[in-house]
Amino acid sequence: MTEREWVQFHRPENLAKSIAIEAGELLECYQWRGDADRERVADELADVLTYALLLADRLDLDPERIVLDKLERTRAKYPVEKARGRSAKYDQL
Amino acid sequence: MTEREWVQFHRPENLAKSIAIEAGELLECYQWRGDADRERVADELADVLTYALLLADRLDLDPERIVLDKLERTRAKYPVEKARGRSAKYDQL
Amino acid sequence: MTEREWVQFHRPENLAKSIAIEAGELLECYQWRGDADRERVADELADVLTYALLLADRLDLDPERIVLDKLERTRAKYPVEKARGRSAKYDQL
Amino acid sequence: MTEREWVQFHRPENLAKSIAIEAGELLECYQWRGDADRERVADELADVLTYALLLADRLDLDPERIVLDKLERTRAKYPVEKARGRSAKYDQL
Repeated sequence: MTEREWVQFHRPENLAKSIAIEAGELLECYQWRGDADRERVADELADVLTYALLLADRLDLDPERIVLDKLERTRAKYPVEKARGRSAKYDQL
Repeated sequence: MTEREWVQFHRPENLAKSIAIEAGELLECYQWRGDADRERVADELADVLTYALLLADRLDLDPERIVLDKLERTRAKYPVEKARGRSAKYDQL
Repeated sequence: MTEREWVQFHRPENLAKSIAIEAGELLECYQWRGDADRERVADELADVLTYALLLADRLDLDPERIVLDKLERTRAKYPVEKARGRSAKYDQL
Repeated sequence: MTEREWVQFHRPENLAKSIAIEAGELLECYQWRGDADRERVADELADVLTYALLLADRLDLDPERIVLDKLERTRAKYPVEKARGRSAKYDQL
């Protein structure tokens, strides 16, 4: 993206907005029904991921690292025994 | 996640909703100002990425592949000559 | 709200972010299932409406007026004959 | 809207999704900068309001009532003395 000098617009706040905007477009694939065209979903999901990776890069965060860290914390909060087959928030278990 | 039998809730539509929900929480870090606590952003960004990767997995999409494909198409739509230093949509160039 | 001197934070951009954030919280009521607790929905919907009305006020827009104007334009775009019982976008009719 | 038989698509969950989608389009007006075209904002804000009012109607909620109720609760949580000129969450005051 450097070659287009777009980095000036890539302040973290703008990237966070962009992720929310693209997440809305992704959700639009499922607005009125539960299934959606796979190609269209791929396209919108790519936009979400792109802005998410740009934000990680901008804040010097390792995407893989933060995902694994979060997974670890989730595991600790939702013990297998209690959470099996439920979608309740951990503090309601 | 299999061990918690949560996969039953991971229909693509629900994952698309989850991405939008987490994108909102990420945006909340920047609700009233342009900077945000890096740890908190890392946490919310991890949630967005996790659901995005789960959706890709569910639809048998390769995250890296769709991001690169989209980048290629973006490159083609926004020629360097015209797009330098501008944030306008490609059809307004 | 004037008495709390919060107006300084109510720049249109921040209000637009706030609407998206609250819309995410509203959506969270329906994250894993199609029904939701009515009280909780009322609470989150109130937040969406509040920020939407604050933004209208900030831009000197009449909420009722813009809703009716938009409805008029929608009516013109989706003729009853063609749109009955369909959820397709008007340009796909 | 009855004349178009669209009510069948207006399940609360779909309306909640629609609000989030339109909130994303509204946010797009401010994606890269703090100001936006007023007409475009009016248009997107109208969409947010329309779906919000449809959801209220669907759940038999009085929009004005829930906004005022919420305002009352906010007033109680953020005492004027402490909250003046701050944007912190009430539990951080």
